[in-house]
Amino acid sequence: MAKKEPKEKAHVHKKTAHDLRMEKEGPKEIGRRIKEMADGLVEEIKANQDPTFITSQRGRGNVSFSEAEGIITLGDKKTHRNFLNVAHARKFMQTMLVTSKANDYLGNNKTAAIREIYYELKHTVGGTDENTFEDQSESDGVIVDLEHSVETIREKLNIHANPKGTLYGDITLIDRMHRNDEFNCLKLGRGGWSIMSRLEPNEIEIKKVNADYVLVIETSAMLERLVEEDYARKNKCILVGTSGQAARGARRLVHRLNAEFKLPVIVFTDGDPYGWYIYSVIKQGSMALAAHSEFLACPDAKYVGMTIEDIKEYGLENVTEKMKEMDVKRAKEMLAYDWFKNPEWQAELKTAISLGKRIEQQALANKSLEFVATEYLPKKIKKKQFLP
Amino acid sequence: MAKKEPKEKAHVHKKTAHDLRMEKEGPKEIGRRIKEMADGLVEEIKANQDPTFITSQRGRGNVSFSEAEGIITLGDKKTHRNFLNVAHARKFMQTMLVTSKANDYLGNNKTAAIREIYYELKHTVGGTDENTFEDQSESDGVIVDLEHSVETIREKLNIHANPKGTLYGDITLIDRMHRNDEFNCLKLGRGGWSIMSRLEPNEIEIKKVNADYVLVIETSAMLERLVEEDYARKNKCILVGTSGQAARGARRLVHRLNAEFKLPVIVFTDGDPYGWYIYSVIKQGSMALAAHSEFLACPDAKYVGMTIEDIKEYGLENVTEKMKEMDVKRAKEMLAYDWFKNPEWQAELKTAISLGKRIEQQALANKSLEFVATEYLPKKIKKKQFLP
Repeated sequence: MAKKEPKEKAHVHKKTAHDLRMEKEGPKEIGRRIKEMADGLVEEIKANQDPTFITSQRGRGNVSFSEAEGIITLGDKKTHRNFLNVAHARKFMQTMLVTSKANDYLGNNKTAAIREIYYELKHTVGGTDENTFEDQSESDGVIVDLEHSVETIREKLNIHANPKGTLYGDITLIDRMHRNDEFNCLKLGRGGWSIMSRLEPNEIEIKKVNADYVLVIETSAMLERLVEEDYARKNKCILVGTSGQAARGARRLVHRLNAEFKLPVIVFTDGDPYGWYIYSVIKQGSMALAAHSEFLACPDAKYVGMTIEDIKEYGLENVTEKMKEMDVKRAKEMLAYDWFKNPEWQAELKTAISLGKRIEQQALANKSLEFVATEYLPKKIKKKQFLP
Repeated sequence: MAKKEPKEKAHVHKKTAHDLRMEKEGPKEIGRRIKEMADGLVEEIKANQDPTFITSQRGRGNVSFSEAEGIITLGDKKTHRNFLNVAHARKFMQTMLVTSKANDYLGNNKTAAIREIYYELKHTVGGTDENTFEDQSESDGVIVDLEHSVETIREKLNIHANPKGTLYGDITLIDRMHRNDEFNCLKLGRGGWSIMSRLEPNEIEIKKVNADYVLVIETSAMLERLVEEDYARKNKCILVGTSGQAARGARRLVHRLNAEFKLPVIVFTDGDPYGWYIYSVIKQGSMALAAHSEFLACPDAKYVGMTIEDIKEYGLENVTEKMKEMDVKRAKEMLAYDWFKNPEWQAELKTAISLGKRIEQQALANKSLEFVATEYLPKKIKKKQFLP
């Protein structure tokens, strides 16, 4: 095939002192910022002023793709929420409830899932028939407001999404919040470690990693295949199975392996819009969480496959699938995204659209079960046959 | 509340010598049965007879609920598949391909996911434009035929579904196929062990369990809650998080803890048709896999919640949700299932239908985050406030 290695500029995503401070912040620092914000509101009230909560504007108008950093970022536009404004009052009340709760969590060393905080805070306001929250989308929105207001991520507010994903390989972790358990993820049988919803440095210490790169894998069955083939040991890498779209815990883990240990990140998904999206979220971050790319993205991640070129290269025509109409529509939208605007991805997306084909990771089993582990991945990775 | 403990007969699900033999069977025994079956076909061909593959009839006509054993079972009706019958020939060919592949796996110590075997076997038959398989449903069906024909489960044919679920608690496993790794699932931080797709005794040895019962939990966020509250240590139990419907690996693990270690199994799901279904599959098995209940079911499992009674008992009216029309329909269907015909479940289902309400596990956070771990579960379990 002899595909040339794409000439890609290295991203100048050097962490600044500010970034690093934010990355390492623990409950104390975040608690302090919450208190500052709350003190400000109290002072406004005491001064007979309208208390105002300030957070970042989100949505496309304030989101952009930073070519230089290779990540999706949020701009500086702010939005104000006033208590003495009928249109804001309900949301202001909700914001205060969530802020106060997060402050409790930080003070008491508790953590909560976003669904738990919703249920915890839901009640009928005394003397009214008004509920604090009608459904979880209301509290979820307010959590995002709070993250942006105090410039952090929900995990550092001790709030989290559901856990998902598996870690396997020669990496030793210490859980500082769980009797300082120390364990190596190559020694947990073929199952591997269930990745938690939160992977903050003050809780989970990455003591040692013996690997040349991190391989992120879309399907849990492909992870099992690579474990059975002893791929991680033979190729000196860490395997992270995401079971579909990567949960925040898995993304934070991959980000930390990349940022703290300078490990290259290689992503292996199905060759279809869903797989490409999984890749792009790991690499650049997502529009919905643009301000969090700093904590979650890996701008130098590479895409190893499946590619449309693989179909011809390995004679897999027989095991492709037709793209559904929705997939084609999605692929066309992706053509317009800034982060897919490089020639390699434009070519990939256009070929996929014109062929109308998708191909799954597991289709490689058509060659043989071990083919993915003994031929496909080692050769492509050695030759750096990546999409950028 | 003082609900009386339901007077339930203990199930006489004593394993027979035959059951135990089947339970413990490894690749050698299964390989031998495959060979016997294949030899039979070869003899038929040599004798100029029409080769005939025999398997169990499935579907409602051959499925029943064994009151005595407390599990869903498959009857003795057989179905024949002949090579020299135009209506059977294609499926006969498919059956032979899958059988031969499974035999390879067993001989070479390989395992494969059901999607892999599909991709591995898919090709165009030489000299024709006929594909061996058009889509995975065809190979999936044939795998089930083979399981029934040689009286075993796919895991023992070295074929498996996707892994899902997490194990946490004082249980020590040894993975005999992975350098004899030995690890304790209370010492893997708060993440826990990622349950494999296959938990066969010849591969995964349960070396030691220090627990009074197994708690099976529907949502991964609730598992995280109980881990954070140190529930497993404080209540001496094993936690198995299924992340929704339990995957086969998780069911096999729970079954083994019940069968090999006589640990009671207590199931904790959302109070809705999906949760009840998760429970019933763990307890009685499923209609689709009736013949496999022996390997997968836990007929003496109990249901701790969420129940409709909990709503009143704990003042959770505010955090219930309306059942969707589909849920109500599903609940009505469940009323007719033999295994929900006991008075306790009939009352539960009828109340849920008439109120039109469902309640989630995480709604307990409305009391406090720790309530589920310090009050709800310990008290209900101590008082045996279970549904049968």
